[in-house]
Amino acid sequence: ILNKKIIVLPGDGIGPEVCEEAIKVLEAVADRFGHRFTFEKHLMGACAIDSTGSPLPEETLEACYYADAVLLGAIGDPKYDNNPAAKVRPEQGLLQLRKSLGLYANIRPVTAYDVLLDHSPLKNDRIAGADMLIFRELTGGIYFGEKGRTAAEAYDHCTYNREEITRIAHLAFQAAGNRRNKLTLVDKANVLETSRLWREVVQGIAPEYPSVAVDYLFVDNAAMQLILNPRQFDVMLTENMFGDILSDEASVIAGSLGLLPSASVGNIVSLFEPIHGSYPQAKGKGIANPIAAILSGAMMLEHFGLQAEADAVKEAVQNALRNEVLTPELNAVSPYTTEQVGSFIAYCV
Amino acid sequence: ILNKKIIVLPGDGIGPEVCEEAIKVLEAVADRFGHRFTFEKHLMGACAIDSTGSPLPEETLEACYYADAVLLGAIGDPKYDNNPAAKVRPEQGLLQLRKSLGLYANIRPVTAYDVLLDHSPLKNDRIAGADMLIFRELTGGIYFGEKGRTAAEAYDHCTYNREEITRIAHLAFQAAGNRRNKLTLVDKANVLETSRLWREVVQGIAPEYPSVAVDYLFVDNAAMQLILNPRQFDVMLTENMFGDILSDEASVIAGSLGLLPSASVGNIVSLFEPIHGSYPQAKGKGIANPIAAILSGAMMLEHFGLQAEADAVKEAVQNALRNEVLTPELNAVSPYTTEQVGSFIAYCV
Ligand SMILES: CC(C)[C@H](C(=O)O)[C@@H](O)C(=O)O
Ligand SMILES: CC(C)[C@H](C(=O)O)[C@@H](O)C(=O)O
Repeated sequence: ILNKKIIVLPGDGIGPEVCEEAIKVLEAVADRFGHRFTFEKHLMGACAIDSTGSPLPEETLEACYYADAVLLGAIGDPKYDNNPAAKVRPEQGLLQLRKSLGLYANIRPVTAYDVLLDHSPLKNDRIAGADMLIFRELTGGIYFGEKGRTAAEAYDHCTYNREEITRIAHLAFQAAGNRRNKLTLVDKANVLETSRLWREVVQGIAPEYPSVAVDYLFVDNAAMQLILNPRQFDVMLTENMFGDILSDEASVIAGSLGLLPSASVGNIVSLFEPIHGSYPQAKGKGIANPIAAILSGAMMLEHFGLQAEADAVKEAVQNALRNEVLTPELNAVSPYTTEQVGSFIAYCV
Repeated sequence: ILNKKIIVLPGDGIGPEVCEEAIKVLEAVADRFGHRFTFEKHLMGACAIDSTGSPLPEETLEACYYADAVLLGAIGDPKYDNNPAAKVRPEQGLLQLRKSLGLYANIRPVTAYDVLLDHSPLKNDRIAGADMLIFRELTGGIYFGEKGRTAAEAYDHCTYNREEITRIAHLAFQAAGNRRNKLTLVDKANVLETSRLWREVVQGIAPEYPSVAVDYLFVDNAAMQLILNPRQFDVMLTENMFGDILSDEASVIAGSLGLLPSASVGNIVSLFEPIHGSYPQAKGKGIANPIAAILSGAMMLEHFGLQAEADAVKEAVQNALRNEVLTPELNAVSPYTTEQVGSFIAYCV
């Protein structure tokens, strides 16, 4: 019997709706397996700017430090996106949170679900059986380097040091060792000095994991290979910006961005969030897919060491998929609402 | 009747083989339409390092300056890729050539050929009719910023100034005006200062092209949209690194990287090259698809103002596609060699 305090950052757009369903499912798990999870909501993102002026209020960050885990919905609002002069942005809150909590590894599983093959834009025989884990470095690179403007130009500096690469590389190698023993480093070592450091460090670590076969791909080629032959990938390891692009791209394999969870791990506390964004057009319409948030909850359970509980959630999700208890993007004919999908999955747990 | 001097840089791997076929087709065009094209070969890439120590010998650059156009095969060799410590690399030659010739706009058409829909990893109904033009900035950004190592870290600086963005944005707007009047800027303006400058500059220019509808996409979303719904794109405009990734990714729409040509334009001389790389595993086997190089030749003809000649080449390529006179990746059953495909297309011109 576990006692866990979970900080929930519902955020913007559809974030709050999908968090509600993830909480519902986690509560069902607590009931069935006899745990005690408490949930405490805090502000982050555009909603936090609106009510406090800051995208990551001090008390939110403080609460996260002392939590057992953080569940995040989504952040972002179009009113900032098309205003290059905005001084404060919701994204700053997310980046500051990642940095402050030291969430250096973002882990994104991508699976081609058999019952959803028809929903993918990719031909079924290309993706059937695809199953990969993307390790994206999350607190370094061009996201966090010095950036700004001079009179003449704008600049963003990308930097990486050995330690930043080493720690996530070990996580990725370990994960590969527990899976199909293949690790692919994606970089642009033919052009970038930072990529050459990535390659050097990974080449240096590889002998410590003799069972893992290592492959190196340039990012342009990787973006193509992900679509041409996704089954070739087991664990993919890459830096922050490339990981952002490739993991969203890889979502087409699953058939919907609304299915994909993620875990961001570090040394203090771990954070779990769906990879979809705030999708403001869908807010309040009951059409947002809660499965990505629910599966993020399953990753949280695994992180707590609760494998049977995590498996129960994943099995309940499979049940929803098999029975087509799904939101409109995956079930156009007789769609269910966000809330109905969440309740069904909670019921099946 | 035109007199043109074309510098050919066959380069490495399959570069020489595919250049031979492009030359063959351009010679057939000259014959049929009564022009005079002369071809002069020079060294660049790994082959240039092997024989001169430099990936871009002075005399090669000099020859390009005084040419009417440059045809490039491909450069690159795996012996450099997995050696992060290599001091000289074939890619440096290509980057230096782009910079020295001021080739600031790389233009890549991507078309879903009707007869090749079955070859694409994407479902036919998703891609049928897709037809876009990608404008990739080619002489700025993280490719050309300061890069290096300190004791503690590696760094790559990304910079852009207004002028660099403005000149390619005008080209992209003009192209959109001659097509379906839609321009999509791809950036990461929610995180990068350089991207915010891109957005600012493009927003500033847009009113000069009132017929063109402008759309803004974050690069992670664009990487997904390219696969989910490629028909939404007409002209895509983006910076150097994002363009590298997205244009290779977009090649899956055409069914083979071996079909995609590119033009790199600037103020001095323009350069035409297939977007596939040196593909060393295929070298000398007669299996390299020459169509990308041949269509790069067609783009060269258009650049010379020879539209009827360019159309004749494109029609001849269609003929090869319709009759399945194609290399093994597109015709597994009764494949033709590189040389046979080139000869067939030259014959049809
Ligand atoms: C919202 C944005 C800053 C963020 C990122 O680029 O990291 C998002 O795209 C993600 O992938 O979590
Ligand atoms: C070979 C490499 C330097 C080059 C690039 O990244 O620009 C290639 O990928 C391309 O797209 O032309």
